[in-house]
Amino acid sequence: MLYEYLNSFDFQKAVRKAKHTALLPVGAVEAHGPHLPLGTDNLLAERLARRVAEQTGALQLPVIAYGQVWSLRRFPGSLNISNDTLIRLIVDIGRSLHFQGFRILAVINGHLGNNPALKEAARILYDEIRELKVYHFFYPGTRDVIREVRETPAAHATYFHACELETSYMLYLAEEYVDMERAIRDVPKFTEEADVTPTPWEEITETAVLGDATLATKEKGKKVIDAAVARMVELLQREQERMAESP
Amino acid sequence: MLYEYLNSFDFQKAVRKAKHTALLPVGAVEAHGPHLPLGTDNLLAERLARRVAEQTGALQLPVIAYGQVWSLRRFPGSLNISNDTLIRLIVDIGRSLHFQGFRILAVINGHLGNNPALKEAARILYDEIRELKVYHFFYPGTRDVIREVRETPAAHATYFHACELETSYMLYLAEEYVDMERAIRDVPKFTEEADVTPTPWEEITETAVLGDATLATKEKGKKVIDAAVARMVELLQREQERMAESP
Amino acid sequence: MLYEYLNSFDFQKAVRKAKHTALLPVGAVEAHGPHLPLGTDNLLAERLARRVAEQTGALQLPVIAYGQVWSLRRFPGSLNISNDTLIRLIVDIGRSLHFQGFRILAVINGHLGNNPALKEAARILYDEIRELKVYHFFYPGTRDVIREVRETPAAHATYFHACELETSYMLYLAEEYVDMERAIRDVPKFTEEADVTPTPWEEITETAVLGDATLATKEKGKKVIDAAVARMVELLQREQERMAESP
Amino acid sequence: MLYEYLNSFDFQKAVRKAKHTALLPVGAVEAHGPHLPLGTDNLLAERLARRVAEQTGALQLPVIAYGQVWSLRRFPGSLNISNDTLIRLIVDIGRSLHFQGFRILAVINGHLGNNPALKEAARILYDEIRELKVYHFFYPGTRDVIREVRETPAAHATYFHACELETSYMLYLAEEYVDMERAIRDVPKFTEEADVTPTPWEEITETAVLGDATLATKEKGKKVIDAAVARMVELLQREQERMAESP
Amino acid sequence: MLYEYLNSFDFQKAVRKAKHTALLPVGAVEAHGPHLPLGTDNLLAERLARRVAEQTGALQLPVIAYGQVWSLRRFPGSLNISNDTLIRLIVDIGRSLHFQGFRILAVINGHLGNNPALKEAARILYDEIRELKVYHFFYPGTRDVIREVRETPAAHATYFHACELETSYMLYLAEEYVDMERAIRDVPKFTEEADVTPTPWEEITETAVLGDATLATKEKGKKVIDAAVARMVELLQREQERMAESP
Amino acid sequence: MLYEYLNSFDFQKAVRKAKHTALLPVGAVEAHGPHLPLGTDNLLAERLARRVAEQTGALQLPVIAYGQVWSLRRFPGSLNISNDTLIRLIVDIGRSLHFQGFRILAVINGHLGNNPALKEAARILYDEIRELKVYHFFYPGTRDVIREVRETPAAHATYFHACELETSYMLYLAEEYVDMERAIRDVPKFTEEADVTPTPWEEITETAVLGDATLATKEKGKKVIDAAVARMVELLQREQERMAESP
Repeated sequence: MLYEYLNSFDFQKAVRKAKHTALLPVGAVEAHGPHLPLGTDNLLAERLARRVAEQTGALQLPVIAYGQVWSLRRFPGSLNISNDTLIRLIVDIGRSLHFQGFRILAVINGHLGNNPALKEAARILYDEIRELKVYHFFYPGTRDVIREVRETPAAHATYFHACELETSYMLYLAEEYVDMERAIRDVPKFTEEADVTPTPWEEITETAVLGDATLATKEKGKKVIDAAVARMVELLQREQERMAESP
Repeated sequence: MLYEYLNSFDFQKAVRKAKHTALLPVGAVEAHGPHLPLGTDNLLAERLARRVAEQTGALQLPVIAYGQVWSLRRFPGSLNISNDTLIRLIVDIGRSLHFQGFRILAVINGHLGNNPALKEAARILYDEIRELKVYHFFYPGTRDVIREVRETPAAHATYFHACELETSYMLYLAEEYVDMERAIRDVPKFTEEADVTPTPWEEITETAVLGDATLATKEKGKKVIDAAVARMVELLQREQERMAESP
Repeated sequence: MLYEYLNSFDFQKAVRKAKHTALLPVGAVEAHGPHLPLGTDNLLAERLARRVAEQTGALQLPVIAYGQVWSLRRFPGSLNISNDTLIRLIVDIGRSLHFQGFRILAVINGHLGNNPALKEAARILYDEIRELKVYHFFYPGTRDVIREVRETPAAHATYFHACELETSYMLYLAEEYVDMERAIRDVPKFTEEADVTPTPWEEITETAVLGDATLATKEKGKKVIDAAVARMVELLQREQERMAESP
Repeated sequence: MLYEYLNSFDFQKAVRKAKHTALLPVGAVEAHGPHLPLGTDNLLAERLARRVAEQTGALQLPVIAYGQVWSLRRFPGSLNISNDTLIRLIVDIGRSLHFQGFRILAVINGHLGNNPALKEAARILYDEIRELKVYHFFYPGTRDVIREVRETPAAHATYFHACELETSYMLYLAEEYVDMERAIRDVPKFTEEADVTPTPWEEITETAVLGDATLATKEKGKKVIDAAVARMVELLQREQERMAESP
Repeated sequence: MLYEYLNSFDFQKAVRKAKHTALLPVGAVEAHGPHLPLGTDNLLAERLARRVAEQTGALQLPVIAYGQVWSLRRFPGSLNISNDTLIRLIVDIGRSLHFQGFRILAVINGHLGNNPALKEAARILYDEIRELKVYHFFYPGTRDVIREVRETPAAHATYFHACELETSYMLYLAEEYVDMERAIRDVPKFTEEADVTPTPWEEITETAVLGDATLATKEKGKKVIDAAVARMVELLQREQERMAESP
Repeated sequence: MLYEYLNSFDFQKAVRKAKHTALLPVGAVEAHGPHLPLGTDNLLAERLARRVAEQTGALQLPVIAYGQVWSLRRFPGSLNISNDTLIRLIVDIGRSLHFQGFRILAVINGHLGNNPALKEAARILYDEIRELKVYHFFYPGTRDVIREVRETPAAHATYFHACELETSYMLYLAEEYVDMERAIRDVPKFTEEADVTPTPWEEITETAVLGDATLATKEKGKKVIDAAVARMVELLQREQERMAESP
């Protein structure tokens, strides 16, 4: 199921078996507090993709481990690439996948900051290659279950980071990289300005933790992640069937 | 030693311990015959980097798994990104690493086709950030040992691919991904034109194997790889010492 | 208060009187159903800016009347410019305003599709010109009041368009351009895919109306718009004071 | 006749009625002395377009109010965008207009500095969309009438600015924005170098007035403007007829 | 006096002797009728530069032999490069010349179509390197003498091409490349549209000759060329003196 | 045989006579020690092209006299253009040549530093215009004869510069520009780093001579150059024949 470990002689058969579907995990190297590693978003994206691959038969591509990290770029360890670089990278890969016979590309994103670039890349591919369907997933279908599992209010309407939620995801998907003994509670107060003017997060938090990571549990993670995986699988399977019917 | 698995709280101490040195493996997804996986160059770049990290204390970054694959782009499974995309990606990462306190960036390349982009990116960073030393390594210091271990002549003065040599590297560094039972001998005849006009390799080979992979051995691989690692370590340590002396 | 109608001899005095604050309305030419004109977003952006100018003393720039209209670009009358073009335009204007002595630039946006470009442009200016504060406003501070005035549920979590809400804004700010006799009710069903794959809106609606425009009233519009204006004025005045204190 | 105030339901009929012709006024925000507003070129472009629209039935688009203002960019109030930005903007709009069914786009320019960008944009559209005819007008057909009405010699072979001529245009087209009591006479001496090396106009004039604005009259303006309008109408009508004959 | 034939050991002395002045001829490969070669503009630019070099002591650079040839690009033999390419080329060379110690760069242009690119390049260099003075010359100071020598009216207010004038220039500067026996008279009628919409010249002329080449004489050429050279020399010497006074 | 000196009336016949083959010499302005001129690479490229033209009937284009000179850019007299500029220039020219009826373009390169750009440009043209065959030649087919004529070992595995070899080429092709009395012997020691990190040559040599220029002879030059010409002629004639057979 891992694209990289196929060889070129067996490749075309594998594409057919994968129903012409490829999964591209995209993450980032970014500060995630004292209890989570810098590569948290890469781990999440890869392991989400693994589960989606298992249920859809899709081929999983190697992760793009570098993302757009403007807000946290000045935190220790963060690495930032521009929107423009990320867009070009996705578009180049999308073109190659189309040439290689894929008809569905699902970009599985573990880092919110990548979203504008991924959406733009998907639109460029849409306009250029009509027969390639490109998805950009960031924990789809999880709004309700998140409301349910959360014990603390969100620090921000859109952002969650290294907090009760994301730490729970890691406990479920990559527990061996979580150090719960160092998990902290740090609820930042987003200024009213943060949504309407460029605001690097060092103005808001010292830890990069947006909430109470100590409340994270594997169970909470399981509920949200399973919902996200289920939604991705559902959408991809529906499209795979549609394609099977009208080839 | 893996950058990704550090956390932001411990990061700055780790940078100092790593003597401000980062290793960036860069590979490709590319056809490598029936016996080697598409991700061969990623595996080689990562495992080379691992050894260099062990001996220099440097921090190893996540691999860039997509490379410039013009010549083999039409072979099953190959994925190609443009020189321009790869240059931007390296430059963005280099800028971030400099911000994060690194003074040496060694790009460890497993795919020859990346070389022009890596050289250009290194020059851009040289002109922009004088205090960041950027290396681009592609098996340095191996000319003599290669001449020694080789049993068959090279198919091309510059290129080696999925052959006696590269298969030997894989047997030494990533044996679990090699299927020697499927290894083949296929010595292509490069046309006289191949060096002076764009020549996709489907004009030259059907298998993407440039030589006799059946002659590959772990021992041959060890000799070449150890020489490459030794050379990289030597150059990096010398630079680390120079920096320690004149901070 | 209108930048365009100043002359160059009186200009510098006017900048000081405006507390070094400029307002840049940005809209779009886009289908808005049978009852609203194509230039709806331009009218809204301009008239919002007018009110903010009146209360803050800021200078109002001429509207940028062309926006990023990907989703509705194939509807009759829509005109679309790329994110890239819009980013460059805002950045060029921001640089000039900084040269002319401005310290605050508030981009007042009437079209949601412009947001990614405006945010990116603001970040570019942030990185390039630290002493210029750039805001990008899209009806800030209106979440609660919208929940209060709405009689029908939103057709989409993020989008509103030519509906109960936007038509109400127009009734309050630009009544002379609204033809309530042609207002319609058309509640589209956004597919589950619409948020995760490029989905032009002709797949979702024939009218470009996302809801029940017949329920629009001036009073509803007044409540939301007054809240948005109040929030923008509050943020700008706070910044103007901060600047006055530390010049 | 104003594109912005149409709605999407009536749009296609309006395009046919307009004989598939759109007018795009382009101006600038630029110093024009003590008696003319910064937005002079926008006012002129818009009102020229209005007259051409009335006589040709064409649809008038919202003005592009920002132009290439290199020479006067350091004068109080001037705002400058790059040639590149302006070219992209025009090309994007041209593509959309073609999609919307237009076959003629007349760019009506009120600011000489925009000319190189407009010409380049027109060529790009010419090469890309053969069936869209793009005009770029800057007071065409006025050479003789200008020679006739002028009482003072031109300060420069090509440039006129805020002078007897342009002030007359404003008196005819936008009198309410002219303050003739502040009109001045300031005849700059262009250095021999000004045409052959980059020469910002602060080296040539303190007022940005190139001549004797006190001699401006509505009658002079009428003569030149009527000639320009007549020429534009003539060219557009001829093209509209040609298209009607060979659809 | 030819930059190319200096060597690097003697270079710096030569720059000082040249009063830090470099001449860069720029031409084009373009159809010029049956009697003039495709490289006419290159020959003219180079030989103009030679004369200016002789009188100012400046160093003459190798010609840029490719220019922007949009209007005549479809004529046999014409080669066209884009404005963008030409701008980048001039800017790169300008930066290098500045590094090499030059303070004056005179671009001597033999092809009108290059003018917008040369002007833009000069402005970019002006903004980037204040201490480099960049001239872009296209037969400066010749208006009056042209009026005097011309026996036939100009076919166009701005353009002259392969006609009485340009053929005379060639007779004076590069007689060995002119075949007067094949010179023709072909007065095209520029349509009224040609100045306001992209108009490739195949719509206007079959020969690319704009007038009566048979009337060309060496004497006419001498008068115009000597005036152009005198003007260039005068401007450059004045600047050289200014620099000598305030080093 | 010189493209520039053809005229447009005779052009199409000349293209047919040239078997649709164009030669584009590309050189550089670069330091070449005390005995060779800055324009050495231009002279070599042009005169190589002349010989190839004589034997193949191909048309020779004017030289591109500016190249990518990163390594020696800080030496007196060197002029550097970017890879990007050079790529665009070659691509623009290639497109025009294809329009003009050429089917073979041989870029004859006299400067090693241009190679990456020329290779990239050739690939872009390959992808865009399948029916244009683009060669990029840099002394092809000379490995063996170089080994034979050389009396001193190469200073570097890849580079030769202003040394025994290149000076011999000049003695054979452009003797009038060589000053053998000033020829020197200066064998630099390339650091181990020079191939793996950006290394401007001022760190390696003061003279820009890489070896013993005093050993240069016309005979050595003749042997290598004749071999290079023979190889280019052979490849081009084979392609010309192939095209003649399958038009």
